[in-house]
Amino acid sequence: MTLAGIIAALTTPMDDAGELRLDRLQANLERYNASPLAGYLVLGSSGEAIYLDRAEKLSVLAAAARHADQHKRLLAGTGEESLKATLEMTARAADLGYHAAVVRTPHYYKKAMSPRALLGYYRELADQSPIPVMLYNIPPLTGVDLGLETVAELAAHPNICGLKESSGNLDKLVRLAAARPGFPVLVGGASTVYPSLCAGAAGAILALAAAAPEACCEIERAFRAGDHPRALAAQRAVLAAAQAFEPLSIPGLKAAVDACGFYGGPPRRPLLPVSAAERLRLDEAFHSLRRACSGGRAAGAPAPAPTDSPA
Amino acid sequence: MTLAGIIAALTTPMDDAGELRLDRLQANLERYNASPLAGYLVLGSSGEAIYLDRAEKLSVLAAAARHADQHKRLLAGTGEESLKATLEMTARAADLGYHAAVVRTPHYYKKAMSPRALLGYYRELADQSPIPVMLYNIPPLTGVDLGLETVAELAAHPNICGLKESSGNLDKLVRLAAARPGFPVLVGGASTVYPSLCAGAAGAILALAAAAPEACCEIERAFRAGDHPRALAAQRAVLAAAQAFEPLSIPGLKAAVDACGFYGGPPRRPLLPVSAAERLRLDEAFHSLRRACSGGRAAGAPAPAPTDSPA
Amino acid sequence: MTLAGIIAALTTPMDDAGELRLDRLQANLERYNASPLAGYLVLGSSGEAIYLDRAEKLSVLAAAARHADQHKRLLAGTGEESLKATLEMTARAADLGYHAAVVRTPHYYKKAMSPRALLGYYRELADQSPIPVMLYNIPPLTGVDLGLETVAELAAHPNICGLKESSGNLDKLVRLAAARPGFPVLVGGASTVYPSLCAGAAGAILALAAAAPEACCEIERAFRAGDHPRALAAQRAVLAAAQAFEPLSIPGLKAAVDACGFYGGPPRRPLLPVSAAERLRLDEAFHSLRRACSGGRAAGAPAPAPTDSPA
Amino acid sequence: MTLAGIIAALTTPMDDAGELRLDRLQANLERYNASPLAGYLVLGSSGEAIYLDRAEKLSVLAAAARHADQHKRLLAGTGEESLKATLEMTARAADLGYHAAVVRTPHYYKKAMSPRALLGYYRELADQSPIPVMLYNIPPLTGVDLGLETVAELAAHPNICGLKESSGNLDKLVRLAAARPGFPVLVGGASTVYPSLCAGAAGAILALAAAAPEACCEIERAFRAGDHPRALAAQRAVLAAAQAFEPLSIPGLKAAVDACGFYGGPPRRPLLPVSAAERLRLDEAFHSLRRACSGGRAAGAPAPAPTDSPA
Repeated sequence: MTLAGIIAALTTPMDDAGELRLDRLQANLERYNASPLAGYLVLGSSGEAIYLDRAEKLSVLAAAARHADQHKRLLAGTGEESLKATLEMTARAADLGYHAAVVRTPHYYKKAMSPRALLGYYRELADQSPIPVMLYNIPPLTGVDLGLETVAELAAHPNICGLKESSGNLDKLVRLAAARPGFPVLVGGASTVYPSLCAGAAGAILALAAAAPEACCEIERAFRAGDHPRALAAQRAVLAAAQAFEPLSIPGLKAAVDACGFYGGPPRRPLLPVSAAERLRLDEAFHSLRRACSGGRAAGAPAPAPTDSPA
Repeated sequence: MTLAGIIAALTTPMDDAGELRLDRLQANLERYNASPLAGYLVLGSSGEAIYLDRAEKLSVLAAAARHADQHKRLLAGTGEESLKATLEMTARAADLGYHAAVVRTPHYYKKAMSPRALLGYYRELADQSPIPVMLYNIPPLTGVDLGLETVAELAAHPNICGLKESSGNLDKLVRLAAARPGFPVLVGGASTVYPSLCAGAAGAILALAAAAPEACCEIERAFRAGDHPRALAAQRAVLAAAQAFEPLSIPGLKAAVDACGFYGGPPRRPLLPVSAAERLRLDEAFHSLRRACSGGRAAGAPAPAPTDSPA
Repeated sequence: MTLAGIIAALTTPMDDAGELRLDRLQANLERYNASPLAGYLVLGSSGEAIYLDRAEKLSVLAAAARHADQHKRLLAGTGEESLKATLEMTARAADLGYHAAVVRTPHYYKKAMSPRALLGYYRELADQSPIPVMLYNIPPLTGVDLGLETVAELAAHPNICGLKESSGNLDKLVRLAAARPGFPVLVGGASTVYPSLCAGAAGAILALAAAAPEACCEIERAFRAGDHPRALAAQRAVLAAAQAFEPLSIPGLKAAVDACGFYGGPPRRPLLPVSAAERLRLDEAFHSLRRACSGGRAAGAPAPAPTDSPA
Repeated sequence: MTLAGIIAALTTPMDDAGELRLDRLQANLERYNASPLAGYLVLGSSGEAIYLDRAEKLSVLAAAARHADQHKRLLAGTGEESLKATLEMTARAADLGYHAAVVRTPHYYKKAMSPRALLGYYRELADQSPIPVMLYNIPPLTGVDLGLETVAELAAHPNICGLKESSGNLDKLVRLAAARPGFPVLVGGASTVYPSLCAGAAGAILALAAAAPEACCEIERAFRAGDHPRALAAQRAVLAAAQAFEPLSIPGLKAAVDACGFYGGPPRRPLLPVSAAERLRLDEAFHSLRRACSGGRAAGAPAPAPTDSPA
């Protein structure tokens, strides 16, 4: 399985009481299916997986698999802190038809997460997993960095299919692309998709693509077509929107998803929803982004607001 | 409920396959019960709670409650990432007879863990919890710092009974003791128990006390008796042992527990057991500590090694 | 030479044009001479040495040496980035009668400041210096940490007389006091003087002592007298004042020095003076501190304001 | 004055006693003059300016100005900690014919380096400087970050001509290029020149270009020609060499300069020269780089080793 292109890291729809809204997930997916997205990551960091119990996780995975278009890549976030729990979740994702498992570094006991411990973890996981495993490095959330040497060693495993790199470290990306040509790296930050593609990234897995899939895909499309000026212009437009939501974490992402006519909805506690003022700024930022993307073309009517969207 | 003294943060005994060994937990507790420890923290960071599923957590909590001496304070680590899960675990701990719940800061989405979000989280938890809630701040593991102002506000809540502070920040301790006299702060680092007591700490919750309870208690006993030179000498002895295990994280702690004649056993994956050389150094360090503690007194025969101790 | 007690890290008086005011330095010293301070550090971090050219540094060192009481310890901050420049400044300080040189870690090329490089630097300096050398570790300003092992090795050099430790790391202090008994460690943070003395520090070198010498000395006096409750009370009073000025860096310190009736004056650019509101808060904090210190005793009339104090 | 292209951040030749070797600087410049480099930065971080006294700095600036080809841009590193000293050095550089001054953020008192203080510093400097001022942000060495908003405000000043950005933050680069189109940003890291150019950088100021000017220029040449694959290949070759020297700081850079047939020579203390093993690895890495650059073309004989190169 080769991984490339723009993959949306989906949010998990909930209502004001924090209960899952799988009907909303279905509605979102029906619209995502019509976009040029290459695939979906379900239960990544954007999906609040850390707040869901096991039954909830499985129901989200099942619902997403059911409603995703068969031409989209389906990735499941299955990383837990223990190897045992990660193995179990990965096996379930495989049963549900996921193409690959995206597994973040375990990280609670940071000092113990030596290269040797991480090598052992991912190797045993890859040995036993029925589906390919994608490494997932996100130091801003985990405080653990999966180093270049460790990735390069793991890249040789036949059941490890790529790396999601959310450190923002372009340097590492260039080095890895040189050291392991052909091993796909998908970056995790919407702000630097274009320079990352230049530096050798195969694609990107983006939270922002759950709000603005077309805009994100436009960066990659222009890059693949060799149209660098257009790729850079698309990147700049995306970046302005990324600036607006990233400081607000998941609550900001969900509000951005709302702003683009999908169902974002409220986050689960301890997360607090964005303020009215923040929501207004997000609306403006994402409205500008869609305008920038549509360019001279007919812009496509903005999606109608959902009838019971959260306050 | 007032909290003070030295409380041991217990390890969770497992076998080589990673399965719980509750019989070993019972045996450990029978010996801890005879020590001057003020109480136990079950399922704290030292207890690998993050690697246990819910059923395992409940069985460990139940076993510890069953075998703990009734004069010891019983604290349960019940912090999960979501408010909902933390509330559920806290209610179960109350049912099992725990005196208080020790709740670490949620932390996965670090940027979203604003003072406002943390205040909201702990207040709602304290409102609903049947037992008192102890705040737990451990930035080296969580990357989140529960600030002085937030703690001072929460200290006014009638169902918040103290703070476990594992930042090593003495400054904050002095400030808090001045700002909220009577609000108990228990520190989490064995290296600075004595200066922390001087600075106003009510006690300490220590992983090292699961290996060397007497040595840890001696610091506090001497301090309470006004014997500062002896307290400092005891602190120095403890610190040398702390130096030996702390860089090795949970695997080192479990080996130290073994070294002191309790059952430590292997950690759960992705953690790897310490090497033979590391185990030897830990044996020496903790042997020295026990010799230092026994001083001129008859040292008490070292506990016999468990018959099926891990390799 | 043994180092102990409370040493004030002096500010360097300047006028609004940024020119030195050595007459003001003299006036300050005449009042400091009457205090229980053990000595002075001239041209430490508090002295804006980094903003002075060589001629200015020498004139400040000379003026301070001339007006300091002969019973006070005289320490000169002589650390520059290159070994050569540090050697030159240290020789000049020796000529001027300073008892010791306080030498911060060189730090611009952080990756190159290995233990080996720092050992080599301090050893060659100590070999050649006509006066004893005091190590000075201040990671918050330098981004370099002089580690425990390096200090322990350097402590064996006959011309290295102590360590000024401004990391706030109590742990290191306890370890060092155990590893090198008798090697004096003076801490650099006013917030934790008392617990540091408990942990084995020989004294403290404090910027705050340039504003409130009596209050700082009271902590140590009570500690030496075995009066722990009074030492802790004095520490708490000092801490409240430290909280007020520390976030404001040198400009706040100079305003605090003003607030206590000495001449603080404006800082040199790029530093900006504190705002009127900040100055008011500092006045209040230091007024409270003096009131707390005077306790039941006659408080000693506050010093008259200097006639041409800075706006 | 517009800034663009690849500018070499020169090293400062010294002998084993740490004395300046201006003759070696001249010889190096004669060879650099024949390269496609756009210009030189004299006394940047690569030039050990922090270890030179004022007379030495002026003699280095004068010598470099004398021997630089008149078609090369001449930039002087004139940043000192105080505004006054920076103004003086900048005026001297202007007298010597430098086209612009590159001024790093002052940084010793980190907490005081607020946006307001930095704005004030650079504005007053730019107001008074006879030559254009280039901002210089290098957080890994200074611990201070000149933020996007501050740069964007300063970019409006008519005598501020650009930014040298050595944070490695591509995100900031894209944002700045969007916010201030036409304001030149030159990056400071050899590992990411190509993606930085894609993201809108005008060029780069590189220590590595003092060792391997052709290889660095090749990245930019290919990029300007729209030959992205060749630009990426050149970037990869450069990155492998950058990996070899960067962990070794200035001593590694000087050894790399030696390895390429220029005069690098020893660093000044407290810096220690690289070990023989490190030197060997650098020789290999830079030999590979030159081989990669020459590609199918005649490689140009490697420069003869200097007759009295340092051991």
